[in-house]
Amino acid sequence: MAKVGVLLSGCGVQDGAEIHEAVLTLLAIHEMGAEAVCMAPNAQQRKVVNHLTGEEMDELRNVLVEAARIARGEIRDAAEVKAEDLDALILPGGFGAALNMSDFALAGAEMKVRADVERVIRDVHQAGKPIGALCIAPALIAKLIPGVKLTIGTDTNTAHALEQMGARHESCEVTGVVVDEENRVVSTPAYMLGPGINEVWQGIRACVREVLNRIRNT
Amino acid sequence: MAKVGVLLSGCGVQDGAEIHEAVLTLLAIHEMGAEAVCMAPNAQQRKVVNHLTGEEMDELRNVLVEAARIARGEIRDAAEVKAEDLDALILPGGFGAALNMSDFALAGAEMKVRADVERVIRDVHQAGKPIGALCIAPALIAKLIPGVKLTIGTDTNTAHALEQMGARHESCEVTGVVVDEENRVVSTPAYMLGPGINEVWQGIRACVREVLNRIRNT
Repeated sequence: MAKVGVLLSGCGVQDGAEIHEAVLTLLAIHEMGAEAVCMAPNAQQRKVVNHLTGEEMDELRNVLVEAARIARGEIRDAAEVKAEDLDALILPGGFGAALNMSDFALAGAEMKVRADVERVIRDVHQAGKPIGALCIAPALIAKLIPGVKLTIGTDTNTAHALEQMGARHESCEVTGVVVDEENRVVSTPAYMLGPGINEVWQGIRACVREVLNRIRNT
Repeated sequence: MAKVGVLLSGCGVQDGAEIHEAVLTLLAIHEMGAEAVCMAPNAQQRKVVNHLTGEEMDELRNVLVEAARIARGEIRDAAEVKAEDLDALILPGGFGAALNMSDFALAGAEMKVRADVERVIRDVHQAGKPIGALCIAPALIAKLIPGVKLTIGTDTNTAHALEQMGARHESCEVTGVVVDEENRVVSTPAYMLGPGINEVWQGIRACVREVLNRIRNT
């Protein structure tokens, strides 16, 4: 059974992993007969957002502890996961990707990726294993894989930032995917476009299918 | 477009709404062409659990604010939702149903349901509109609808508590549903049985379909 790492950045679209994207990634992985290996960095969240009001809360939360809610407790510290534990890696989106796993939300094209997150992404890629990235998470891949082809949907400002980092951006509708065959990277816009969970599900299912297909061809 | 209330009890299986069950309920509703109306009680959580360790945390969190993470901010205070706003109502599970929306986890068959939660469930039921309940959430329905037929899977202790409240319990596998035609109540065991998200998804999809079918027959 293929093992697919799912790299989470918390629990909630405004300050962590986008919950629908994360759960639908897990559903697609299991529906297609593979096994999910959830992981997250053991780090303080950059902020905590009240998702009812959109306002910042005076709280501290840990990315791994909150991501464990999505994973029902079955989750590992990303720093302890080795590329040989995995056959593929998928990054759901949510602002946590741009706040907790990197500082893309603050620094744009000048972004840095957390060392533990960078290490697992680089190791999986250098082992020739496929990577999927949803929503805003392709920003991390743009930073780490020079010249990679990917999509964040149709937002021109975000696409421009990815191109400044050396990526080739292709516009894509929510139900579609962009595949970089050489780098084995599959991306889909998810909630960068929305509009609803059903459309996002179609894109995520297609993304997971293309990632799994590229394991089989390894 | 049919409007289906989704009554959430927080965000996380140990102290709130079970996240997979909640998201998959939203997916099924949208896939079948209906609209979800997310709601939660505006109340303090009875406790906050670290989902990585299972230990209680020294924190206070609000049920509505945390449930807003699952709803991506599109959520209403359950106290303000009227039965005429809805064509049906679905309750995902998670310990929040037994901790925050009621005290079933503490009091068993002697449980009480929060007044705002009781009011919306009773009003929807008395308006002849169908109700779906997943996982442990049927406990609330057992308390509020005398003699209702439902399932929480196969756990004999929990089933016995529901029968002490006057319900008729039927064992059911995770991919199946139990339908009480007279009361228009549909239930499925979800993560009371598991074992995985794919099996839970099949049961939730069947539950939502049967609930929607009973709207059309109203």
